[in-house]
Amino acid sequence: PHAPSARAGAERLAGLAVPAGALGRLGELATWLCAVQGQVPPRPLDDVRLVIFAGDHGVARHGVSAYPPDITGAMVRTFVAGRAGVNALAAAHGVRVRVLDLGVDADLDGLPAEVGAHKVRRGSGAIHLEDALTAEETQRAVAVGRGVAEQEVAAGAQLLLSGDMGIGNTTPAAALVAANLGLGASDVAEVAGRGTGVDDAGLARKREVLGAALERVGDRAADPVESLTALGSADLAATVGYLLGATHAGVPVLLDGLMSVACALVAERIAPGTAGWCVAGHRSPEPAQTLALERLGLEPLLDLGLRLGEGSGAVTAVPLLRSAVALLRDVAQLRDLVPTDA
Amino acid sequence: PHAPSARAGAERLAGLAVPAGALGRLGELATWLCAVQGQVPPRPLDDVRLVIFAGDHGVARHGVSAYPPDITGAMVRTFVAGRAGVNALAAAHGVRVRVLDLGVDADLDGLPAEVGAHKVRRGSGAIHLEDALTAEETQRAVAVGRGVAEQEVAAGAQLLLSGDMGIGNTTPAAALVAANLGLGASDVAEVAGRGTGVDDAGLARKREVLGAALERVGDRAADPVESLTALGSADLAATVGYLLGATHAGVPVLLDGLMSVACALVAERIAPGTAGWCVAGHRSPEPAQTLALERLGLEPLLDLGLRLGEGSGAVTAVPLLRSAVALLRDVAQLRDLVPTDA
Repeated sequence: PHAPSARAGAERLAGLAVPAGALGRLGELATWLCAVQGQVPPRPLDDVRLVIFAGDHGVARHGVSAYPPDITGAMVRTFVAGRAGVNALAAAHGVRVRVLDLGVDADLDGLPAEVGAHKVRRGSGAIHLEDALTAEETQRAVAVGRGVAEQEVAAGAQLLLSGDMGIGNTTPAAALVAANLGLGASDVAEVAGRGTGVDDAGLARKREVLGAALERVGDRAADPVESLTALGSADLAATVGYLLGATHAGVPVLLDGLMSVACALVAERIAPGTAGWCVAGHRSPEPAQTLALERLGLEPLLDLGLRLGEGSGAVTAVPLLRSAVALLRDVAQLRDLVPTDA
Repeated sequence: PHAPSARAGAERLAGLAVPAGALGRLGELATWLCAVQGQVPPRPLDDVRLVIFAGDHGVARHGVSAYPPDITGAMVRTFVAGRAGVNALAAAHGVRVRVLDLGVDADLDGLPAEVGAHKVRRGSGAIHLEDALTAEETQRAVAVGRGVAEQEVAAGAQLLLSGDMGIGNTTPAAALVAANLGLGASDVAEVAGRGTGVDDAGLARKREVLGAALERVGDRAADPVESLTALGSADLAATVGYLLGATHAGVPVLLDGLMSVACALVAERIAPGTAGWCVAGHRSPEPAQTLALERLGLEPLLDLGLRLGEGSGAVTAVPLLRSAVALLRDVAQLRDLVPTDA
């Protein structure tokens, strides 16, 4: 982000006809938007885009989720039909939605070709037993994500959101957070949450799987790209690439829940400074999201107990960024209200 | 609110193609909107209106505020010109703004006649020394507020917001909260906050004024209408009437910060059940707002450190209500995605 624009934005903020500091987080957001846009006041956020990266996870067949894996493909169809939760939110707030099948464990026929055009593989390895991807698949998925971000930026995106769909995906995401924070098999209780709602037995199973995965991978987990290969998935690797592509292009990112923030943590380790282009949309009930946000120095805008995934928390937060833009653009400067002697 | 609609709304929510409970507060909001509208799914919130009640406060001349009282009138002019913080937010989110001078301590010439048409008096008594209003003025102000709400409802309002403007107004508002929670002069440290930003000396002075006011009024503070006369102001009494009028007409209210919530507390004591028609837009840094919200059983949607007043926190929260409506209206029912055997 552009420090002189941040300073000029802070100066404009200080001159508004409001008490000092009265805009709270909205004032901070407005200044950040000046920095990421390199412009004061910031432009209105008319072109906001969400990309949902979908994929299945081998661990979903090992009791870590409350839902069966074939829901992933059904939800991809629901996104395309515009009938999922995030579609409703996106329509309400003027956000475009694009869904890509990076690794769904099914051949999704009858959908627009673009949905499956970047598919890396069907499913991913069960991370407590084997690597999620090959090194080549990881590179390919990251490159897909970068390319998608570049396409969206070229098409006019002013703000990019990342969304996820994949039954079982909180397990690899929590593993990525643990690996990239230097936590090990003995720390899994700190990162394992209930996802879409597993019971106590499911949570215990999830901890076992996470512990076994971190144990299996050992020191390889310390390298962020290697962590994607060993513990991630095609959809998560693509999300990392997407975040790297967006921020490399100078377009800000509004993060969602655990998957989005876990990928931001990996992206920050690959390209330090990435987090400065990100804002956190909402607080997930997943403990690993909170740990990753702390490391990234990000504080979520919303805390509404959302655990839908899909990018829903990010889309819900979009109007707050628009509020910040409106305040810095449209509120009178105090000097214009109280003329000084000429 | 309409219990059968709440139950039918909860049933529709449970049938959505999302994991149980995954919509968090947005799901609760959606069900509440069904109840207050008496309709499932809820109607889109196309007609949302904010009324700002402005007035001055005698205590502002006794060192309780960081700003001089003549700012109140200047800000009324800024609202009318559409250049204040809340105007920018309202324009961004499709909320109509109306400002009424109930008790500004100035004759505001050159403004549309409607702004001053309901003026009750110039300023209000300094509550540590004298009553804020006469009993007759209180009745008149409450009646004005009720009438304004009825007008807005008749004109099509689907959701009403209350806003405030008045230098020094956190002092009478905190006094109202204390009085209506049964707190006395020895409890002022619990209700006194820094408002728009008084320093330590200002905060100490504010506590003295609050203590002296509660001491002066004694047992009269126990009656909610009497508390408005003794400790309130014309703008706050009108806000109470506005909340009573809106909820009596069956139109839901989105509350703002301390002034709005203090008035909701008084309204709830006058007409028990009022709080069931209200949702809290944001958490104010003022401790009295938190105490009043606890008594009302309301949890704010946002916590962004906003302390602008004007209704700004309520307007910022409007898109969250629209998110809730969109989810319950537009998301597929699970039974439509997974056909059962015919």
